[in-house]
Amino acid sequence: MAEILFLPFDKELKSENSLNLMQSAITLKLPLYSTCGSKGICGKCRVIIEKTDGLISPPSDHEQEVLGELLQKGYRLACETILEGSAVVRIPEESHSKRQVILTSGNEHLFSVRLLPNVRKYYIEVREPTIDIPTADRERLLLELENAYHLKHPILDPLVLRKLPQALRSEKKGTTLSLWGKNEIVDVVPGQKNGLFGVASDIGTTTVVVYLIDLDKGQEISVQSSTNPQTSFGADVISRISFCQEQRDGLRKLCSIIVQCLNELVMQASSEAGIDPSQIMEMTAVGNTAMHHLFMGVDPRYLSQAPYPPVLQESQNVKARDLGIAIGHSAYVHLLPLKAGFVGSDMIACILATGIHRSNALSLLIDLGTNGEIVFGNKDGLICCSTAAGPAFEGGHIRWGMRAESGAIEKAEIDPQTLNVMVETIDNQRPVGLCGSGVISAIAEMVRAGIILSRGNFNDGMHSPRLRDGKEGGEFVLVWAKDTGIGQDIVLTQKDVSEIQMAKSAIYSGAVLLQEISDFGQIQRILLAGASGNYIDPLDAREIGLFPACDTATVTGVGNAAGYGACIALLNKKKRKEAEKIAKKTDYLELAASSRFQELFVSNMFFTSAIDYEDIF
Amino acid sequence: MAEILFLPFDKELKSENSLNLMQSAITLKLPLYSTCGSKGICGKCRVIIEKTDGLISPPSDHEQEVLGELLQKGYRLACETILEGSAVVRIPEESHSKRQVILTSGNEHLFSVRLLPNVRKYYIEVREPTIDIPTADRERLLLELENAYHLKHPILDPLVLRKLPQALRSEKKGTTLSLWGKNEIVDVVPGQKNGLFGVASDIGTTTVVVYLIDLDKGQEISVQSSTNPQTSFGADVISRISFCQEQRDGLRKLCSIIVQCLNELVMQASSEAGIDPSQIMEMTAVGNTAMHHLFMGVDPRYLSQAPYPPVLQESQNVKARDLGIAIGHSAYVHLLPLKAGFVGSDMIACILATGIHRSNALSLLIDLGTNGEIVFGNKDGLICCSTAAGPAFEGGHIRWGMRAESGAIEKAEIDPQTLNVMVETIDNQRPVGLCGSGVISAIAEMVRAGIILSRGNFNDGMHSPRLRDGKEGGEFVLVWAKDTGIGQDIVLTQKDVSEIQMAKSAIYSGAVLLQEISDFGQIQRILLAGASGNYIDPLDAREIGLFPACDTATVTGVGNAAGYGACIALLNKKKRKEAEKIAKKTDYLELAASSRFQELFVSNMFFTSAIDYEDIF
Repeated sequence: MAEILFLPFDKELKSENSLNLMQSAITLKLPLYSTCGSKGICGKCRVIIEKTDGLISPPSDHEQEVLGELLQKGYRLACETILEGSAVVRIPEESHSKRQVILTSGNEHLFSVRLLPNVRKYYIEVREPTIDIPTADRERLLLELENAYHLKHPILDPLVLRKLPQALRSEKKGTTLSLWGKNEIVDVVPGQKNGLFGVASDIGTTTVVVYLIDLDKGQEISVQSSTNPQTSFGADVISRISFCQEQRDGLRKLCSIIVQCLNELVMQASSEAGIDPSQIMEMTAVGNTAMHHLFMGVDPRYLSQAPYPPVLQESQNVKARDLGIAIGHSAYVHLLPLKAGFVGSDMIACILATGIHRSNALSLLIDLGTNGEIVFGNKDGLICCSTAAGPAFEGGHIRWGMRAESGAIEKAEIDPQTLNVMVETIDNQRPVGLCGSGVISAIAEMVRAGIILSRGNFNDGMHSPRLRDGKEGGEFVLVWAKDTGIGQDIVLTQKDVSEIQMAKSAIYSGAVLLQEISDFGQIQRILLAGASGNYIDPLDAREIGLFPACDTATVTGVGNAAGYGACIALLNKKKRKEAEKIAKKTDYLELAASSRFQELFVSNMFFTSAIDYEDIF
Repeated sequence: MAEILFLPFDKELKSENSLNLMQSAITLKLPLYSTCGSKGICGKCRVIIEKTDGLISPPSDHEQEVLGELLQKGYRLACETILEGSAVVRIPEESHSKRQVILTSGNEHLFSVRLLPNVRKYYIEVREPTIDIPTADRERLLLELENAYHLKHPILDPLVLRKLPQALRSEKKGTTLSLWGKNEIVDVVPGQKNGLFGVASDIGTTTVVVYLIDLDKGQEISVQSSTNPQTSFGADVISRISFCQEQRDGLRKLCSIIVQCLNELVMQASSEAGIDPSQIMEMTAVGNTAMHHLFMGVDPRYLSQAPYPPVLQESQNVKARDLGIAIGHSAYVHLLPLKAGFVGSDMIACILATGIHRSNALSLLIDLGTNGEIVFGNKDGLICCSTAAGPAFEGGHIRWGMRAESGAIEKAEIDPQTLNVMVETIDNQRPVGLCGSGVISAIAEMVRAGIILSRGNFNDGMHSPRLRDGKEGGEFVLVWAKDTGIGQDIVLTQKDVSEIQMAKSAIYSGAVLLQEISDFGQIQRILLAGASGNYIDPLDAREIGLFPACDTATVTGVGNAAGYGACIALLNKKKRKEAEKIAKKTDYLELAASSRFQELFVSNMFFTSAIDYEDIF
């Protein structure tokens, strides 16, 4: 095998035997990619032959077709070019890391993003100092980095400086460094070290999700989630803000438990993937404005006072250690931008992930979190609002509600004759409660079966052992104790129905108001995001009146789009600028100031497709 | 009194009564300064009248003389211009903060520097958010900062973001923020808050000094010093490096005690000045390379192995909190640049303070620290080296040596007939030991009196109760126990003399070698820096052979020039770039590789002016 030198920038390539450039790139693990598996089809593996003293195969017909005039500038397709001898070969920026990453949500909806992480690894061989030129470690490293990669004068985090002398003096050959945003070295390790990891986090009011991602391969390698531990200090945003105002050290307490929760999830994900959290070189984070502020240790109290201004809006890069996040010692956390006091970076991330800001179709995007955020529009304009939907869609404030975990009822079917109930549970376990989609499904079926009337009250005229008086008023038994995993009847109460009525009316009314105000036109598609968004049956959602009437074929569950948006911003740094633009360009409608919203909210509490009470008697 | 608005950039100024522009600037505490006390002499208080709808006094003869053609561009002298009505007035950059700061060293040598700190305060009045435009706190603040001062988009430290909402909602009017380097807000407080403080630190091997400086006024307000607590782990640099290599956690230990020492000195200085350390918005730090590395927590072990490379050379800005320094929560520490493994930022600071790099005179600058660093040259070129002089010049390794504190002997006179000794002590206290200048003075006198012979040995032929055998060989009693503050005889031992012989020969030989290698020409002046540098009598120094023969009139003590350099870099940000240039342009001579140095070192151990032993017998 020929000795070969082949580096990303203007480096001499020597080959004694004939070598296909693409194959040598693959052998040497260079950041040169084709999207057709080197079959000469995609034309993406462009290299520039700057100079050659050896022999190069003449351009193929296909190269002539794909490259055209670029051939004269030395461009070639690596997969079709054979080299014998030596040449100076360069990999142009556009041929770097052009892989597509596919994030799969539960429902076949695909997000794709170009892999262009904000942190990249560079391998260099730093020369030893001499007695004549005893240049410092840092300065020799920077010199080599400029020579090898044309990277000029990045700064070194002080903790990297502490690692530097040992990293340069290992028995291993060379040094691998991690560069953040082209201007700061955030890690340095001895030898040629593979593995570049990042973590995306979605801090929901009720649910926290962490995605561990291999940034070399663009692959999700572990997903972990848990209930937001702040829940024990208040189920919704407003009660947590009150906690900060009323309790001494309230802010510090809420801040430290969410940080601890994230650290634990990162630790679980790392352990599952077999890596150390210190190998994680960046985190992205999204959440509603209050969650964002609490994570940053920023007082959210003014979010609850008109005119509800956030403390900050733009995206932030903060050292993980300044937030207490236990990943790479010098790593950054990128917090995506916020729109308003009650439209957070979770909504911006949803837009980014679903791409409605680049689409022609007029889309209504509903994020079914505890803070129901809604956006309407397309590439010509977007308008958003926030409705305090409450945690019902995530199983919160529901008698037997729970997170979408093993044993949660996610779908129910009720026989309108017998009122017998068939349920489907996550992982097909014995039922232990209802997750958000289960609640919606059960209520929709109860409406269809005539158990729930249009005003939301139970149908007194119906007689069944399942329909009975409970401790908190009327209730309907979904699963008898003997069939559950908990030995108790799982019921839906009249109070549960009221919770859903308020939540759905808030969402519905917000959506109607956005349409009215924007005057963009008719909704062409509806996207349901959120922890349960993906699993909600569009027919059920329409049945309970979650969104304005439309062809249910145009309703798509897009899963945890906020989390995917955080992943996208982690995978592709350019998407962060796009997020910033989305936040700046999207209009915001404050519902607290809107009497029209109040009017809509009150009038849309009913289940319009249900039998009216008056129809019976 | 007329309502008035007068801001540094293009702001409309309204005056109903006649007002002198300079007086209104003073009333409003604007950064507009004259150096003549507004007497119309200096011509420094230039303002630009961009537009006026009112009445402006015509230019005076003096203004015509000083401003010339600038008058046509709207320039005026504020102290001579009267306004009635309104005008758009601008304070050009050159009229900002142009005060001179005078640092006085003990010996009347003056350093002067223009006041141009890297941190500045800005007062702004941030508008409240409205329900129509509920812009975030941070974004409203940035908008106002741009409107009022043309400052674009600085970042906010995350800890400043935490303070922001309360700072904007105080009962006090307006907000004062501290801007570091024009691109980061490092503090924000409610109301119009005066007081901007910085601290300069000189981390010597033996002595640590901290200067607390009022950056508004350019005044030193407290100086505190203490022995470097690392001394208990090794008196010199090499032994501390060994400690790091040999002891587990050695680096962490040495790092944390120097940080603790600096924090205590800062606390003492703040307490003396009546301020809180959190009001200190920046620290500058100088020290030799090993002290610099230990302070940063960077392993110095490779400094002791050829070719002695430092881990880093360029200046660094590091968050104080990342170093454990307890000043402003978001403040930075600026570490001045290093030259080489044994020429640190202390030497660069000495050059900066003495200005030998801008002078025509060929200067020999000797920093009499534990690590004796020497530089030779002028504006056309500088060459430096480091000699392991040891701590003798700071009283270290000397039987009765001590720091230059109360009761330290700083000067001795010996009657050659009676051998009676007269001593002068710091603060005229009863003597308790000898500081560096005292040791040099005593040895010079002993040479003059014939007590010490040319090879450094005591004169056996001399008989006096003061000259006797002690535990460690011969010793000379400087002060009898009854006359001291400690009840013990204060002596100079044969071993003390040897320490000084080695130290002075190292300095002398280094100086000679720099002259030989550089070929710059004859030394025209000698500057003695260091904790004792200022107090050493040039005649004494020449007597013991500390530097090449020269007219002692050209020898000046410049005090703790390294510390003054740290102050200068704190007071004027442009001096930091100058320091960087000095570090890059000064040549470095490695003595460890020089056999010529060894030759010189051995042959210059003698006291050439002393009586030779052979002369006696």
